[in-house]
Amino acid sequence: MPRYKLIIEYDGTPYCGWQYQDNGPSVQGALEAAVKAMTGGDVRVNGAGRTDAGVHALGQVAHIDLVKDYRADRVRDALNAHLRPNPIGVLSAEIVPETFDARFSATKRHYIYRIVNHRANLALKVGHAWRVARPLNVEAMQEAAQVLVGKHDFTTFRDTECQAKSPEKTLDALDVTRDGDDVNIITSARSFLHSQVRSMVGSLVWVGHGRWKAEDMRRALEARDRAACGPVAPPDGLYLVRVEY
Amino acid sequence: MPRYKLIIEYDGTPYCGWQYQDNGPSVQGALEAAVKAMTGGDVRVNGAGRTDAGVHALGQVAHIDLVKDYRADRVRDALNAHLRPNPIGVLSAEIVPETFDARFSATKRHYIYRIVNHRANLALKVGHAWRVARPLNVEAMQEAAQVLVGKHDFTTFRDTECQAKSPEKTLDALDVTRDGDDVNIITSARSFLHSQVRSMVGSLVWVGHGRWKAEDMRRALEARDRAACGPVAPPDGLYLVRVEY
Repeated sequence: MPRYKLIIEYDGTPYCGWQYQDNGPSVQGALEAAVKAMTGGDVRVNGAGRTDAGVHALGQVAHIDLVKDYRADRVRDALNAHLRPNPIGVLSAEIVPETFDARFSATKRHYIYRIVNHRANLALKVGHAWRVARPLNVEAMQEAAQVLVGKHDFTTFRDTECQAKSPEKTLDALDVTRDGDDVNIITSARSFLHSQVRSMVGSLVWVGHGRWKAEDMRRALEARDRAACGPVAPPDGLYLVRVEY
Repeated sequence: MPRYKLIIEYDGTPYCGWQYQDNGPSVQGALEAAVKAMTGGDVRVNGAGRTDAGVHALGQVAHIDLVKDYRADRVRDALNAHLRPNPIGVLSAEIVPETFDARFSATKRHYIYRIVNHRANLALKVGHAWRVARPLNVEAMQEAAQVLVGKHDFTTFRDTECQAKSPEKTLDALDVTRDGDDVNIITSARSFLHSQVRSMVGSLVWVGHGRWKAEDMRRALEARDRAACGPVAPPDGLYLVRVEY
């Protein structure tokens, strides 16, 4: 019963999220249907990160256990064929030891949040970025972001429906950079709370607009109160980039 | 009667092309409807390049003549508002002399063609790139591309419906580069024939697969015969990047 590690890219727009749900198509559901079409069996696809509705992945990781020994590149090609026309691509498949668990073996998750900071409508990036019309002060955002780096109780930046046992997380990096009209927010941690990245990004945009300063970010963090959070950024701009093991 | 120069980004996927047509929505038609909604009048939107169905623009240029003196940034904002939810963004508007003509004043047009060279399905780039599954030899493509640079009769690489008076064009640059799985073909010229870029790209992919060598590209060019052309690349990967004046 070999275990395969899959690296997966997807456009989250048409999905209710990574996780299987009754109320709409999920990325996990599309992958499980493809595995069933390939093998004839019901196989659970275990993902590293349960991305929300509309959130994308450049490098989601999942593992599956198959009853037969398939060549890894055949698994990749067969899943891609059965996934069409879903906007989901299996970038690679490899056989891994049974001790590998896509979710629990992960040591670091990397996300990027993409903002387009201009007044024009989005065109080529519809659904793939957050358009923020008013100018953003990226230096102020970067300063305020550093308040959040490190080990903290992130209750303020956590969805009320978050099921994690503890609100304490260690944020390894949170960096805000500008390239022309593109403002990118790059962050990494062993794991994140539900809606944590989008909650941090929304609050950083308040900083970028001068409504908050770094001190307000610190006050919000220390409040440990969801009501102290800024707006939650839309899912469109968020990408799970890479998972480390 | 001030003249405005517009720089426009669009996703060509839902359009039958730049130019107004009876058989479906066009980018020009969407822009003219937005100008009419703003000004109440019928105004022609004159574009620099008549992109085909499914071809995109990062920096198309157009000019319009308005009967009233509007502030340029108001023109930009009003057009964006009336264009929604079209995937068309007016990046900028500025007042230009009446001698400026978006099409005829252009001195150079820059295009990029984006290939994703891997076996996985396209996911985030559906409609925005050409997926080529088999490995491409980019060095061989770059060598063959240089055969096409310069002043030539491009009949081989010209759509049979092309309406240009002469098949002779001067290609200023045609460069093939790789960045991981992304293979980009960047080209510039004062003007191009109908389907010229997609015809050159399709033939270059034959070179990348080893089916053609640089010598075959030269033979095809010198044949001055449409039948000597390789396949025409799909529109998905083509972007009008910038127009110089």
